[in-house]
Amino acid sequence: MKTTDLRIDGDRLLARLGELAAIGATGDGGCCRLALTEEDRAGRDLVGRWMREAGLEVKVDPIGNFFGYRAGTDDTAAVMTGSHIDTVATGGRYDGCLGVLAGIETIRTLAEAGVRTRRPLVVGVFTNEEGARFAPDMLGSLAYVGDLPLEEAYGRISIDGKRLGDELARIGYRGEAPLPLYLPHAHVELHIEQGPVLDAEGGIIGSVESVQGISWQEVNIFGESNHAGTTPMRLRHDAGYCAAAIGIFLRTLARELGGNQVCTMGAVTLHPNLINVIPGRASVTIDLRNTDEAALQQAEQRFAEFLEQLARDEGVAIETRRLARFEPVVFDANVAAIIKRVATRLGHACRPMTSGAGHDAQMLARICPTAMIFVPSVKGISHNPAEHTFPAHLAAGADVLLHTLLELAA
Amino acid sequence: MKTTDLRIDGDRLLARLGELAAIGATGDGGCCRLALTEEDRAGRDLVGRWMREAGLEVKVDPIGNFFGYRAGTDDTAAVMTGSHIDTVATGGRYDGCLGVLAGIETIRTLAEAGVRTRRPLVVGVFTNEEGARFAPDMLGSLAYVGDLPLEEAYGRISIDGKRLGDELARIGYRGEAPLPLYLPHAHVELHIEQGPVLDAEGGIIGSVESVQGISWQEVNIFGESNHAGTTPMRLRHDAGYCAAAIGIFLRTLARELGGNQVCTMGAVTLHPNLINVIPGRASVTIDLRNTDEAALQQAEQRFAEFLEQLARDEGVAIETRRLARFEPVVFDANVAAIIKRVATRLGHACRPMTSGAGHDAQMLARICPTAMIFVPSVKGISHNPAEHTFPAHLAAGADVLLHTLLELAA
Repeated sequence: MKTTDLRIDGDRLLARLGELAAIGATGDGGCCRLALTEEDRAGRDLVGRWMREAGLEVKVDPIGNFFGYRAGTDDTAAVMTGSHIDTVATGGRYDGCLGVLAGIETIRTLAEAGVRTRRPLVVGVFTNEEGARFAPDMLGSLAYVGDLPLEEAYGRISIDGKRLGDELARIGYRGEAPLPLYLPHAHVELHIEQGPVLDAEGGIIGSVESVQGISWQEVNIFGESNHAGTTPMRLRHDAGYCAAAIGIFLRTLARELGGNQVCTMGAVTLHPNLINVIPGRASVTIDLRNTDEAALQQAEQRFAEFLEQLARDEGVAIETRRLARFEPVVFDANVAAIIKRVATRLGHACRPMTSGAGHDAQMLARICPTAMIFVPSVKGISHNPAEHTFPAHLAAGADVLLHTLLELAA
Repeated sequence: MKTTDLRIDGDRLLARLGELAAIGATGDGGCCRLALTEEDRAGRDLVGRWMREAGLEVKVDPIGNFFGYRAGTDDTAAVMTGSHIDTVATGGRYDGCLGVLAGIETIRTLAEAGVRTRRPLVVGVFTNEEGARFAPDMLGSLAYVGDLPLEEAYGRISIDGKRLGDELARIGYRGEAPLPLYLPHAHVELHIEQGPVLDAEGGIIGSVESVQGISWQEVNIFGESNHAGTTPMRLRHDAGYCAAAIGIFLRTLARELGGNQVCTMGAVTLHPNLINVIPGRASVTIDLRNTDEAALQQAEQRFAEFLEQLARDEGVAIETRRLARFEPVVFDANVAAIIKRVATRLGHACRPMTSGAGHDAQMLARICPTAMIFVPSVKGISHNPAEHTFPAHLAAGADVLLHTLLELAA
């Protein structure tokens, strides 16, 4: 059998996704394995066992990231793949887990075919990617690339009041390996898209070339609460109206900036939020994303100008508070090109994409050439028990991962 | 002293407003005396004592309304005044209480001057005007005029799970008087405006000629919840955007209908209400008011058409649920004219007005000639511990009430 004819075992991959999903199963098809809980420990133990059974040497680093290593014919920099196995509280079974288990399946496929690569291969599992129990998200990969000091990470407090360092030790995953354990030759992460683009447009494989920059802010509007029946329209200072005007402006902003600019007002809280009272206060959240940093800054600037004008027009005070800001990440063009070439050779419709969500790969991109492989999420649903990817697409993604690793490790 | 020179004692009225406000005081200048609670009982007991001290004969009816009666020289239909003493949870000290205590002050003033009127005078206190503990609001006066059967009223359940009939009995205010106890010759209610018109435009007395019609509905929008980063603008079905579009449309609607049409979106609830998730569901409340029934119907019609178009444009489902609907009430022109004439004679700037809020008087208007007297609310603030009316305005309102009652009872 030629190496180019190798395919992973889709049924085996699917069975293992199901087996991992049974740990922390929520009974509705979903999963709750918050980082560094008992469920996370059980998931880690199972994945570690599967790594060793596939012939990988397993090591745990001080932030709880763990890695399965397969030697190459040359003692040189490894090609890495991997993702995470922690979930949000209402998670699905594919987010993160696909990338890890497909990586192990890749190793099994190579082992069974007796294929040795020139470069070593590594499958990594990163701690607390979701950020659902400890802030920030992508914590393990951020610490891996040296941008979050260990002591600072250890001091992070969970939503249930526990110190991250203590929780790592408690579940037995405060390891001794150096940080970072490997400086990879390249890194590739397979992940479900978590968005609707591939599903809506019929693609099977996304070759992810970039991650959007994110600008999050909270906007607080201070108007005047008053009786909805007795206050003439001309005398109102309606914070709820201002919130509505912001919601409408965001769509205009996205349309006028064009490109891949997205704008969302996801949360609105009015006070007192009663049918017969003009809202005196409103608090809304703003999520702006763009792959282009200059365009994202332009969106922020135009939004700020809009708020100033709105405050003047409506006689209200408006305060903003920054919640998060990440610049866009551009992945390695060469790795992305290999993914596209491999997918096309395997017969899978492939399109270049941008990731709207954050992933561990964007941290790895700081230390080595990196790109990502996406497979479709049905209706784009994710962080939801209804999260689904068709088995054929899971297998297609794993096959593209296998052959991308083979090219990079050659 | 001529009868026309009689004036109430403003200091005495103010002191009693303060004494009543001490029952259920919230410590921030406000009051919480929800209907048929222990605080309401204590307030009722105090007001009943003050009625008896003023020489009034006190009777309680089966819905807990209670009345102080002062005989006239003729045994004929009485002239009634009154209001309510229950409050919302974050109430002020004037809403309702002013009308009741000014009524008693009026009686004291007449008694001290030895003035007997031809017709009897009655001061009434109506149960559960606010609707904050039991639905509907204006419950006691609605039952009084025969439009809410007693057994139906008794079965109403409070926000804390108690039956109205049981609560009436528990606090000792399930009385034996006939319902209605009196068929008044006329009814006049003094009340704070609860809106900003008098305060903003410099009037002291409002001669209230009508009450706005009210149309309340809840609008539920069913879109599609999705990732705010990964879902392109063109693929969204954003229930939060639809809520915003409704908020903007309401202002357009009010402007285009003109007149005294007011439109308010007071409450907005998004789901899941997270910064990085496109809202999949939104529930908003709509409050439309107009003094003209035909115009109010037109507003409802145009709003319904807007929702249909919005649902088509955004690919969402929209359901509406009616919460309340009251036609406008036109008060008796003759009673309103007396109020205006009296106010002018006493030297108080007076303007004809519409009430945007509901009041017990609109129920009494179903059975006898009725109008209302308004005094200014500073900044229109009401249902709020900051509710305030200047002492001189409280006294002016009570003087206008006194002389209006004198004219009607002559």
